[in-house]
Amino acid sequence: MRMVDLIQQKRDGGRLSREQLYDIVRGFTRGDIPDYQMSAFAMAVYFRGMDEEEIADLTLAMASSGDVVDLSGIHGTKVDKHSTGGVGDKTSLIVVPLVAAAGVPVAKMSGRGLGHTGGTVDKLESIRGFRIELPKEQFIRNVNENKMALVGQSGNLAPADKKLYALRDVTATVNSIPLIASSIMSKKIASGADAIILDVKVGSGAFMKSLEEAKTLASAMVSIGKSLNRRTIAVLSDMSEPLGTEVGNATEVAEAIEVLRGHGDARLTEICLTLAAYMALAGGAYPNFAAAKLGLKELLDSGQALATFRKFVEAQGGDPAIVDDPGQLPQAAYQVKVRAEQEGYVQAIDAEAVGVSAMLLGAGRATKEDPIDYAVGISLRKKVGDAVAFGDVLAVIHSNREQNQDSMERLLHAYAIGADKPELVPVVYEVIE
Amino acid sequence: MRMVDLIQQKRDGGRLSREQLYDIVRGFTRGDIPDYQMSAFAMAVYFRGMDEEEIADLTLAMASSGDVVDLSGIHGTKVDKHSTGGVGDKTSLIVVPLVAAAGVPVAKMSGRGLGHTGGTVDKLESIRGFRIELPKEQFIRNVNENKMALVGQSGNLAPADKKLYALRDVTATVNSIPLIASSIMSKKIASGADAIILDVKVGSGAFMKSLEEAKTLASAMVSIGKSLNRRTIAVLSDMSEPLGTEVGNATEVAEAIEVLRGHGDARLTEICLTLAAYMALAGGAYPNFAAAKLGLKELLDSGQALATFRKFVEAQGGDPAIVDDPGQLPQAAYQVKVRAEQEGYVQAIDAEAVGVSAMLLGAGRATKEDPIDYAVGISLRKKVGDAVAFGDVLAVIHSNREQNQDSMERLLHAYAIGADKPELVPVVYEVIE
Repeated sequence: MRMVDLIQQKRDGGRLSREQLYDIVRGFTRGDIPDYQMSAFAMAVYFRGMDEEEIADLTLAMASSGDVVDLSGIHGTKVDKHSTGGVGDKTSLIVVPLVAAAGVPVAKMSGRGLGHTGGTVDKLESIRGFRIELPKEQFIRNVNENKMALVGQSGNLAPADKKLYALRDVTATVNSIPLIASSIMSKKIASGADAIILDVKVGSGAFMKSLEEAKTLASAMVSIGKSLNRRTIAVLSDMSEPLGTEVGNATEVAEAIEVLRGHGDARLTEICLTLAAYMALAGGAYPNFAAAKLGLKELLDSGQALATFRKFVEAQGGDPAIVDDPGQLPQAAYQVKVRAEQEGYVQAIDAEAVGVSAMLLGAGRATKEDPIDYAVGISLRKKVGDAVAFGDVLAVIHSNREQNQDSMERLLHAYAIGADKPELVPVVYEVIE
Repeated sequence: MRMVDLIQQKRDGGRLSREQLYDIVRGFTRGDIPDYQMSAFAMAVYFRGMDEEEIADLTLAMASSGDVVDLSGIHGTKVDKHSTGGVGDKTSLIVVPLVAAAGVPVAKMSGRGLGHTGGTVDKLESIRGFRIELPKEQFIRNVNENKMALVGQSGNLAPADKKLYALRDVTATVNSIPLIASSIMSKKIASGADAIILDVKVGSGAFMKSLEEAKTLASAMVSIGKSLNRRTIAVLSDMSEPLGTEVGNATEVAEAIEVLRGHGDARLTEICLTLAAYMALAGGAYPNFAAAKLGLKELLDSGQALATFRKFVEAQGGDPAIVDDPGQLPQAAYQVKVRAEQEGYVQAIDAEAVGVSAMLLGAGRATKEDPIDYAVGISLRKKVGDAVAFGDVLAVIHSNREQNQDSMERLLHAYAIGADKPELVPVVYEVIE
């Protein structure tokens, strides 16, 4: 069948068979199907959607378009975790050692940041000596020995998805549930996990702005997981303000260590314990969710999770001294205080604006080629619900530039301050499994 | 504004301003906007449509993307005619000399055929010596002297439309009223006409299968004409069976001559008189439609229309002898009779199937590069409503191949024969102005 007929079939609301979707993905990956047909197809999917079976077939077709990671050398159920991305989202740095400390192996592949959201790989590279690339044998050995390893995504994982994503980005076809769900899940399937815990972020700082959209996406991904025999659980969590207090790279590592010590931001700790509990449950470490959460809390308090993190850093060439003294992480030259110009309560913090501020300081990338300044970032001293007096420090800018007027103004604008104490939204909205 | 934002605007049901549409058309023509963005945009237009103002703006943007023909050297109101295409559609060969004989100048640019529909240019080239390319000065001179000239479309007429049409053809975005209407009208506007008469074909052999779709398209084009100050009238005519009795090239020229003599097929003569009457009216040759139709009928009966056609053929290098003796037109080696295998009345003739048969004989092109055999074609000896006895000749195949079994079977299948005499549909359904 010709591609133009398949586009028309979808345009007219028809469904595509597994063979047809495989033909499309294979043809597109090889370059036999040109971009202009694929973008018209993506737009037709945007308007017509896909049913559960089509989404699962598309996912598997993209997952098998390149390398598929073989994790059979790792003992036990391999659990993976994915976040749809947010500002200040350092959960992987906390959740992975926490679950590993509970004895569940985590062989994690993470990405770099782009735009206003950061990437786990960039954050870890702020640790002196840390190596994000490991030979496959060492990756497997580290997981078997320390129950965890974390590497960057290999070059040829789901190349169809990579190519399609780049095309969707410039053709206004990003925002389609079937395409988002299959994109995320294809990489997770190709990464070789047995079980997948999804952290679906909701709110102004996230891709999904409303709970309803987020639920639709979460359900689509859970349904893909079911179709493909991967236990999949989606946790819908809040991203209406940045997560925790730190936005940057080294500063986020320091905050993660704080949480691993059992002294972190309460809301950040809560979402981490929730995600870790579902991961540990999927890995068979606990009989039920309550027991998992309790057990994991003890692993934080006893220092076992932190010890796993220390071993992990050391195993990948990083300087373990930073774990006990985060002050040894890269430090910015200038600390600039942003002070409140009115009194009241923090009603909202525009997470996207904070993310963009951090990016412009050098903590993130506007384009894929931009270098990263690991030391810079933003510390939020006031969060939503906090009382603020005139002149109070709202945030601190960690910068390596002398002039930071722009960032200060941007941050001041990111804070909405009003008279009444606002109702706090939950950190975990819902769990879909 | 970036193209991705304009795609998104249309995707979300927004309207685009004149400036935005000009930017899109200019960027696409230059190659600054890549095909993959334009095809996604076309698909968004397919789903969201365009309002009258957007369609007019898009039309004018495409019309001005290349050369705009200057017909100011021609005296009087320049009237153009366009058919949306059908099988056996030789109306231009008849209507243009007829209107010219009434004193209204017609400077016509026509296209070649592709697929199951033929093109006026190919038909004329079946006349020995006929030159379809004329220097611009001679084109204008011929119109002033003989009131008509007919040339192929120049290279750079509405290049944006040409490029967009090629893209739509392979991305399942052909079938969109705003895109079809603007495509047709952009070429007519660029061709320099003051008034445009549109022959919108309806039925199984036409692009528009239902009267309702055809009316929507016709209204869209008439509205574009109004917006751009070109008097535009759309005649909705029947294409549920092939038009007239001949489908081919030389055979269609012969049939056109028959009509110009006043002895042609009644339905074909009727649609030609209707189209010509509206053209002559727009050109100011008659006070009203009834007078125009009567006057034009006299020009057929008196031989004046045929005399104009003879002068036209001679002026463009063609052998005028064929006008008096169409037997001098190219003749096929084999005449194969297709006979009825049952008795009754012809209920329907599948025009598309007849068109494809003629194309496969060599009368048309499957791809743009295919050569044409001017002699071959199909003569329909029975039309819808005719009584048929077992063994009656339904059609004659004019072929240059010895084996014509395939064509015979195809034609036999194109005829639906049933017991009752069918109700005839009108040849002209409606006029929109």
